[in-house]
Amino acid sequence: MAHTHQQKPKLIARLRRIRGQVEAVERALEEDRGCGEVLMLVASLRGAVQGLSAELLEEHIRHHVVNPETEPDPGRARAAAELIEVVRTYLK
Amino acid sequence: MAHTHQQKPKLIARLRRIRGQVEAVERALEEDRGCGEVLMLVASLRGAVQGLSAELLEEHIRHHVVNPETEPDPGRARAAAELIEVVRTYLK
Amino acid sequence: MAHTHQQKPKLIARLRRIRGQVEAVERALEEDRGCGEVLMLVASLRGAVQGLSAELLEEHIRHHVVNPETEPDPGRARAAAELIEVVRTYLK
Amino acid sequence: MAHTHQQKPKLIARLRRIRGQVEAVERALEEDRGCGEVLMLVASLRGAVQGLSAELLEEHIRHHVVNPETEPDPGRARAAAELIEVVRTYLK
Repeated sequence: MAHTHQQKPKLIARLRRIRGQVEAVERALEEDRGCGEVLMLVASLRGAVQGLSAELLEEHIRHHVVNPETEPDPGRARAAAELIEVVRTYLK
Repeated sequence: MAHTHQQKPKLIARLRRIRGQVEAVERALEEDRGCGEVLMLVASLRGAVQGLSAELLEEHIRHHVVNPETEPDPGRARAAAELIEVVRTYLK
Repeated sequence: MAHTHQQKPKLIARLRRIRGQVEAVERALEEDRGCGEVLMLVASLRGAVQGLSAELLEEHIRHHVVNPETEPDPGRARAAAELIEVVRTYLK
Repeated sequence: MAHTHQQKPKLIARLRRIRGQVEAVERALEEDRGCGEVLMLVASLRGAVQGLSAELLEEHIRHHVVNPETEPDPGRARAAAELIEVVRTYLK
């Protein structure tokens, strides 16, 4: 998995931040913080997981399906670029 | 926050399972597991966070805004029940 | 439904624009436009339906459940304001 | 766009049903139906648009990027199949 090695440290750092966000929700619940505050923390956790999903999907398309930058078939290259753009729109 | 006390142990257990899912993604990346497997783990993490969001929003409506079961104004009670139903549909 | 009357013309105009977007997707398919173009039109249709959902949910909370601006109970008013904020975040 | 021709009648029929759903929301607003009913109609419109997005994305991957059934490279074929599965999960 060449791409995993290359992106690994960045992705693992991102996962650690997400773990930190999960722990922040746990702490907020344990300390009986307001429900509104907990909801906001969960909303931003959800955004972070959504962002990670979009990045991983894009990586997957580029490294395992079709890389728009290096694909020799121009139709496939364009279709993969369009796919990445739509995936970003849906998961942003 | 009466409702937090009541639901606290269940919600904290749920957060711990979500933390376990985040750690599973981290491990899968560290062990260079296939990209498809990582994507599936992130998809189920996303589903779990979505489910938690829906439950917390429903709790928030019931305990802090309007509880459809105990609200004396029938219009408000019905509107709160409809709201909970729609929130469930959107976040399922 | 007081609020429906008040917001009706704006909401109906919004629905008409959404109908126009559905028709644009139909036309793009009938004219055999590129799949990438069709995907983009559907992505923006989806965004428009999402935006309409958020607005209607907010209207529903304000006019039928609890209006944060006019609610005499300050706890309920704050909880309703938090709810509206979270709904916007989730459906943006 | 070979695939557009093949799937065209089915997709256009699907768009027409979606247009019918938009018109049903318009009518419900014009007839001052309850806000809860309008919200439910919009939620099912949103589900239909989401379903159309998932189908079009899958079509796009199969016909323009990589078709898992006919792709000679087994790594690409598997990656495309995983991609389709994840897209379905995210947009269901």
